[in-house]
Amino acid sequence: MTAADEVFGRSPNASTDDVAKLAGVGIATVFRHFPTKVDLLEAVLALRLERLRDRALELAASDDPGTAFFGFFSQVVAESASKLAIGEALIAAGSAAGPDVRAAGAGMREAFDKLLAEAQSSGAVRADAQFAEVYALLIGASRGATAVGLTPEVRDRMLVLVYDGLKPRS
Amino acid sequence: MTAADEVFGRSPNASTDDVAKLAGVGIATVFRHFPTKVDLLEAVLALRLERLRDRALELAASDDPGTAFFGFFSQVVAESASKLAIGEALIAAGSAAGPDVRAAGAGMREAFDKLLAEAQSSGAVRADAQFAEVYALLIGASRGATAVGLTPEVRDRMLVLVYDGLKPRS
Repeated sequence: MTAADEVFGRSPNASTDDVAKLAGVGIATVFRHFPTKVDLLEAVLALRLERLRDRALELAASDDPGTAFFGFFSQVVAESASKLAIGEALIAAGSAAGPDVRAAGAGMREAFDKLLAEAQSSGAVRADAQFAEVYALLIGASRGATAVGLTPEVRDRMLVLVYDGLKPRS
Repeated sequence: MTAADEVFGRSPNASTDDVAKLAGVGIATVFRHFPTKVDLLEAVLALRLERLRDRALELAASDDPGTAFFGFFSQVVAESASKLAIGEALIAAGSAAGPDVRAAGAGMREAFDKLLAEAQSSGAVRADAQFAEVYALLIGASRGATAVGLTPEVRDRMLVLVYDGLKPRS
């Protein structure tokens, strides 16, 4: 799974064979667990989303909900290039996201909603922002960073603008 | 061209035949001007970008550069779903953007840069924002709106957050 995450996160056009090589196992072993490339891609994407959900839930219990919220937002945007590559590989393999991926995605959104509510209660994020537009902004910042191929410096400067818009207007 | 813009803006999977039907001409006529679907898609996408550039240049001469800048930003985001559909159709047809599309895209970015500079001079947009991150935000807001399939109401609320982040901090 670690090898698959790395290989597909780098390139949507990678093959199951590349994964087997990096993992140091025979391709037959990979195919025994994941009969098709789609099965493998879905498992990798679901695992990523589950990890993000766990991270968000952990952060939602933090003493400093503002730092937790913005830290999580930054992490999602920074990781988006490799996550999108896996999503694109799925589309290229002719598959929509299966039930495991959809469930993991719903879990991640729910955890992000919780993190947002905590940050709003603490006053770190403006109270009039609703989940739908904050989530759209998260997806947009992620896709914008990937599409334009931003350097980490420009990505961070873009996030300053986004975060200032999310903070309460003084 | 108007028919092609409408047809491909609705669906990346549309065919040249659909375009000919909507235009009320024979498919041979379309193929005489555009030998392949890629030629037609490129012409449509370049035309869209050129129109956006012309609109941005027109707005850059406005008396109210802040309203002009934010109005243009909103227009690009609102039109992004159909523009992205044309871009996707090009990718699905196995083509990267050709020279006409690239030139039109560069012209649009230059005009947007001009509009940003005017809005910054007038104090409507914060002076510390550089073109790279503002452009990334434009692309991100456009892709976010399309990816999540936002209603116009949520899209407008998302843009309130983005615009507040672009305004000078008081």
